[in-house]
Amino acid sequence: MSAAIENPEDLRMTRLQEILDSGALRSAGRLLNSLAPAEIAHLLESLPQAKREILWRLVDQELEGEILVAVSDEVRAELVKDMDAASWAAAAEHLDLDDLTDLVQDMPETVVDEVLSALDDQRRHRVETMLSYPEDTAGGLMNTDTVTIRPEVTLDVVLRYLRRLGEDMPADTDSLFVVNRDDEYLGVLPLWKLVSGNPDDTVAEVMSLALSPLRVDMSDSEVARYFETHDINSAPVVDERGRLLGRITVDDVVDVIREEGEHQFMGQAGLSEEEDMFAPVLASTRRRAVWLGVNLLTAFLASWVIGLFQDTLAKYVALAVLMPIVASMGGIAGSQTLTLAIRGIALGQLTGKNARHLLFKELAVGALNGLIWALVVGAIAGVWFDSLALAGLIATAITINLLLAAFSGALLPLALKRLGIDPALAGSVLLTTVTDVCGFFAFLGLASLFLK
Amino acid sequence: MSAAIENPEDLRMTRLQEILDSGALRSAGRLLNSLAPAEIAHLLESLPQAKREILWRLVDQELEGEILVAVSDEVRAELVKDMDAASWAAAAEHLDLDDLTDLVQDMPETVVDEVLSALDDQRRHRVETMLSYPEDTAGGLMNTDTVTIRPEVTLDVVLRYLRRLGEDMPADTDSLFVVNRDDEYLGVLPLWKLVSGNPDDTVAEVMSLALSPLRVDMSDSEVARYFETHDINSAPVVDERGRLLGRITVDDVVDVIREEGEHQFMGQAGLSEEEDMFAPVLASTRRRAVWLGVNLLTAFLASWVIGLFQDTLAKYVALAVLMPIVASMGGIAGSQTLTLAIRGIALGQLTGKNARHLLFKELAVGALNGLIWALVVGAIAGVWFDSLALAGLIATAITINLLLAAFSGALLPLALKRLGIDPALAGSVLLTTVTDVCGFFAFLGLASLFLK
Repeated sequence: MSAAIENPEDLRMTRLQEILDSGALRSAGRLLNSLAPAEIAHLLESLPQAKREILWRLVDQELEGEILVAVSDEVRAELVKDMDAASWAAAAEHLDLDDLTDLVQDMPETVVDEVLSALDDQRRHRVETMLSYPEDTAGGLMNTDTVTIRPEVTLDVVLRYLRRLGEDMPADTDSLFVVNRDDEYLGVLPLWKLVSGNPDDTVAEVMSLALSPLRVDMSDSEVARYFETHDINSAPVVDERGRLLGRITVDDVVDVIREEGEHQFMGQAGLSEEEDMFAPVLASTRRRAVWLGVNLLTAFLASWVIGLFQDTLAKYVALAVLMPIVASMGGIAGSQTLTLAIRGIALGQLTGKNARHLLFKELAVGALNGLIWALVVGAIAGVWFDSLALAGLIATAITINLLLAAFSGALLPLALKRLGIDPALAGSVLLTTVTDVCGFFAFLGLASLFLK
Repeated sequence: MSAAIENPEDLRMTRLQEILDSGALRSAGRLLNSLAPAEIAHLLESLPQAKREILWRLVDQELEGEILVAVSDEVRAELVKDMDAASWAAAAEHLDLDDLTDLVQDMPETVVDEVLSALDDQRRHRVETMLSYPEDTAGGLMNTDTVTIRPEVTLDVVLRYLRRLGEDMPADTDSLFVVNRDDEYLGVLPLWKLVSGNPDDTVAEVMSLALSPLRVDMSDSEVARYFETHDINSAPVVDERGRLLGRITVDDVVDVIREEGEHQFMGQAGLSEEEDMFAPVLASTRRRAVWLGVNLLTAFLASWVIGLFQDTLAKYVALAVLMPIVASMGGIAGSQTLTLAIRGIALGQLTGKNARHLLFKELAVGALNGLIWALVVGAIAGVWFDSLALAGLIATAITINLLLAAFSGALLPLALKRLGIDPALAGSVLLTTVTDVCGFFAFLGLASLFLK
């Protein structure tokens, strides 16, 4: 994220906005439609709603499908809200099968039938097959446009076959899949091996066996990790009997990885990774209100704990001044452990097997940092309020809260995952509940016992 | 993240751990060395330090280089700490040039010379070229192993040329780059077009001009967005005069995207994306202590503000019970706006141009949610402490704090970025400072004025 290099899209956006502001819509349209569909999608997402609508009306109809596939779910829902069946059909016409499959899932029921019936039998059958797999599995990511060859033919025969395919060769094919008569996957022949190999060699001699095919029900995050681990551009997908169903290409995997990262980051704040930066105020308010409400419960729970010790607080107002420090140190320390654990789970590196090691390490770190900061905060508080007792109390409370923070930060995400709850979404609220409630309880409880 | 499907690496890890526990090191070694280097890297990262060291000693020397490239910086530093020059040289021997370049940057000075002098002239020159570009630019990501062709030759000639290259063809080549006599980039010939095209056509007729080459000084996150936007597997890199320098492949881009996501997610908790889950306790404690110290300053600032109102607090202990609610609601609402803004900046969708729109929208959302929750909290507080004045006070304070939260959540990240400070790292601490300090000040300040 160097600030020195101007982003070219930023420049184009500026120019487009200037043109829009000047009202010269026709030249804005020309500039717009010269961009790649994904760039237009990116621009649309960067614009406030009013301008977004103006721009969307300037888009060439044949680009609409690809743009709709590229924008986030929320922006798509907004763009399509006035589309009629004919526009849907036109948008669908220029799409690859896997993009079409994605888009069909957002179409109104009535439009789906119309769009599907406009396809030829083979294409319709393929889309229907792909629609039958959940979106977040290998089946949902794959495209069925594979080029398959037999192991016993020579490279020369393969080359002649591809030349006959000509324009029908699926764009961005980087590998051919080798199958037997029963369509069972045998291996892969990357194009770079095909073109650099001896034409008289057979496919079986040249093909690579290193790549194990992906099961159609593999989760999309496992698919992503498989691509990352093996540095591949495409991978075959097979059914439970090993028959080739399709291929996954790395561009779809890139989207999965981007979304995983955004899901973790935005989930911590109770936002969806699909959140539109310029969503309508009322829709945003409603969604945010839910999250604020959940967190308000936490806050009232903490207040209730504080309320238990009103008598002590009335006597020693210094407690009220210092108590947020105990809760806040616990929250910060706990969120560090929590973050480490959530990433570990997402990468498949933290499981029930090694959780014990993480727990012990985090408890040790929590104990050491507890001691360090207990001394520092204790000393400052002691001098500030001229009270050795207060110094001892806050030091003890901080140590206790940092240990609890380490404990819950390490174990909460695993517990949530076992319960089928998304740790990226629920982890931070629950952790704050623990560190706030326990922090106030430890500090004020000890004070009520020992400050007489 | 479906829980239903067992992760195969998890199974392997379990089996490996069982073998390690049983002490049968030789069979653990055999199982280990049958895995892909990146899988071994993943396993090493998942293991506590003691087991990690045992496993590392079992790794075949020829795999060491690729594993070192794949693990995170922190784990790598730990694994290499006892390596001598001979082991470094052996690890470097089997690496691709771009991986070697990455690794060289972590080698001790003395070893670098030894490793580089063991390379032939051409390879050494290429590594030195790649080393001259910053790691986080297109130059740092690129590999110089391109296959270049001239526009005037026919596809048939190209095919014969590739066949002559044979084994020397760089693995995973998916495109050939078309250059003129001065090595200036003209276009790209994807292999799938080469094999499906008419052998008598010239390269110029078939090549694609759609892909604009990447400037060598483009930042890595812009490179990543370019790959995402254009769904490509590799892209040419040129110097300022348009001469071809190398190519970037999508596997390196995938790493950039993964790291960007982790940087945002882990930065919020003051952690580096390279943080080792099983880092030594002392090293972890030191790093965490720094972050806790920074946050302690925030907490003491908030305490100081509370301390200004000790007289009021002593009279009305209910204020102490309720004040965390005001701060917490502001913190939660602000972090939602902050998260949206940080993502927008990272994706290049939020700039100085459209910040105004985000600010107004977030202020509107903050005002609406402020009103809703001011009413709810005011009603509860009023009933709880039987005081209409308290209800009015907390309602007003919450509204003020939610507006301030929206304001700072939207503008802080942009201000930080302009100052050259990473918003993903500093944003949340600063935001909490604002919402805590302002929350306490608004609530207690109003109380000291109106509760008499």
